[in-house]
Amino acid sequence: MGAVVALSSHGGNEHGRFAQKHLLEGYGVCVMKMPARIVAVAARVEQRLTDYLSGVRGPAGPPERLAQAMRYAVLGGGKRFRPFLLIECAGLFGVKLENALDAAAALECVHCYSLVHDDLPAMDDDALRRGRPTLHLAFDEATAILAGDGLLTLAFEILATPQTHGDPGVRGALALGLARAAGWGGMAGGQSLDLDAEGKTLGIDEIRHLQALKTGALIEYACVAGGILGKAGGSDHMALERFGRLLGRAFQLADDLLDVTGDETKLGKETGKDGGAGKATLVAALGMDAARGELERLEAEAIAALDPFGARAATLIETARFVSRREN
Amino acid sequence: MGAVVALSSHGGNEHGRFAQKHLLEGYGVCVMKMPARIVAVAARVEQRLTDYLSGVRGPAGPPERLAQAMRYAVLGGGKRFRPFLLIECAGLFGVKLENALDAAAALECVHCYSLVHDDLPAMDDDALRRGRPTLHLAFDEATAILAGDGLLTLAFEILATPQTHGDPGVRGALALGLARAAGWGGMAGGQSLDLDAEGKTLGIDEIRHLQALKTGALIEYACVAGGILGKAGGSDHMALERFGRLLGRAFQLADDLLDVTGDETKLGKETGKDGGAGKATLVAALGMDAARGELERLEAEAIAALDPFGARAATLIETARFVSRREN
Repeated sequence: MGAVVALSSHGGNEHGRFAQKHLLEGYGVCVMKMPARIVAVAARVEQRLTDYLSGVRGPAGPPERLAQAMRYAVLGGGKRFRPFLLIECAGLFGVKLENALDAAAALECVHCYSLVHDDLPAMDDDALRRGRPTLHLAFDEATAILAGDGLLTLAFEILATPQTHGDPGVRGALALGLARAAGWGGMAGGQSLDLDAEGKTLGIDEIRHLQALKTGALIEYACVAGGILGKAGGSDHMALERFGRLLGRAFQLADDLLDVTGDETKLGKETGKDGGAGKATLVAALGMDAARGELERLEAEAIAALDPFGARAATLIETARFVSRREN
Repeated sequence: MGAVVALSSHGGNEHGRFAQKHLLEGYGVCVMKMPARIVAVAARVEQRLTDYLSGVRGPAGPPERLAQAMRYAVLGGGKRFRPFLLIECAGLFGVKLENALDAAAALECVHCYSLVHDDLPAMDDDALRRGRPTLHLAFDEATAILAGDGLLTLAFEILATPQTHGDPGVRGALALGLARAAGWGGMAGGQSLDLDAEGKTLGIDEIRHLQALKTGALIEYACVAGGILGKAGGSDHMALERFGRLLGRAFQLADDLLDVTGDETKLGKETGKDGGAGKATLVAALGMDAARGELERLEAEAIAALDPFGARAATLIETARFVSRREN
């Protein structure tokens, strides 16, 4: 059984909860089927995040206003796409979902921190996120900055905690990979390039580089981290890295296409926002037809990268198809 | 030989570089001698931070504007007090300075990130830091947010890198301790309490709790991290924890006293700022005499906590005396 949940990129608003809510109410905002497994996994990830952010796991007793803000930023829906990739890639090596949940929760904390900081008035100045006021509007700007800081820090606390994995070498590799993917040479660097790019015309290679950092690095990490948890050998590690990189590119390109062609009613969010804000997108640089062709190639290449895993990769193949073919 | 460098708390402006500069110019801003070893160690820490932030160590190629901002936030002076504590505490167990520098650099990255974010308009809205415009004024607010994020992330990248320590268990313990000290239950939580407290009258216990989180946690971690690097046994670990906790309290209380009694000319910064901003300080809550008495007790207790280390702790004892007795 397929389930219907919206899926959008790091850069755009995420309306998973919004879409689900409206679907239940019969609005039918989303129509594309996504693997049912994503929805099932998201529920487990949600629970684990709830445990961390309510003091059931990890230390209790942080200041309540900050804790509330961190819960607001993380909980309450979302398809948990990056955790899903981590869990599925770990599953290729026989790692049980339960044993990948902590690393997955840490990754989602980093993703959510980046959304909170990107939404700030000094950054993208967004008012809505998942159909709710952004954190700095729901609380205040200082609390939003601190909540983002707290979530980024919590991610490394989770990864460094022995319960995340019994082998400190595995925990260290997870933390190192996450720091590189999220830091100045990864996601934070990409956001910096994106801010610099506003109002400029970037070349195609510059756009690719920006997107590889801003959204690609964390998606690639999600896949690689699954391999780290599963103690993947060198060639499997490289296959996951390649899959993650291609999937990340497809994910972003599909999002850029939807920003141009998407139906606002179906999509449940404003289209044309990136172009209007002078954001550099590959669709503008390549043209629609070339962008669609590239997306098809990326999907095929991502699926081909999974060849070494044979039938075990069926869910990941389905996910790659969904990511590139969704129409909303 | 003693050297003269200003020393102030996390919460206030830090004028180490400012003071040194003016001293050289004959203004005589600083008069209290501090252990020469702090100055010598600071130079080594500065070099290691420069190596990390210029790509000599770690990955090269982050976006230049962000990298520039991160260098601006970290380099160019400062007494590197937290790294000094880490290095000296590690030295109690025979760890060479060279082998503690990476962990020390990571700690300083977290301290500098916190200064950058605390200075933001939405937070304390400070215009000057170490005698220069704060990062958000020298660059822009978005870059300041990202540079802070980048520095926090870089700290965990450094700690997770094998060159920091050969034993992944040690690296993991360093990262876990830092995350707890810096996160929602530590420094970030303390900053949240501090923001909430503006304009309110806190009780003495509330002020102690706030300060324990905001400035105490990272100073305590600096001492404990030295023990982790030195694979300290249980009782030594507890002694360092106790020393760090007491030193952190003395550090903050001395700073609060100077805010009331300090000579602006000698101090090189504005006094009465905390009181004026409605910040909760122990001096206001206890009164001057009781605060001075408490500071004396804290100094004595901190030094007593070092008893297990005998003569090896001479520099740390000197440091504790300096921290509580400085007059500017």
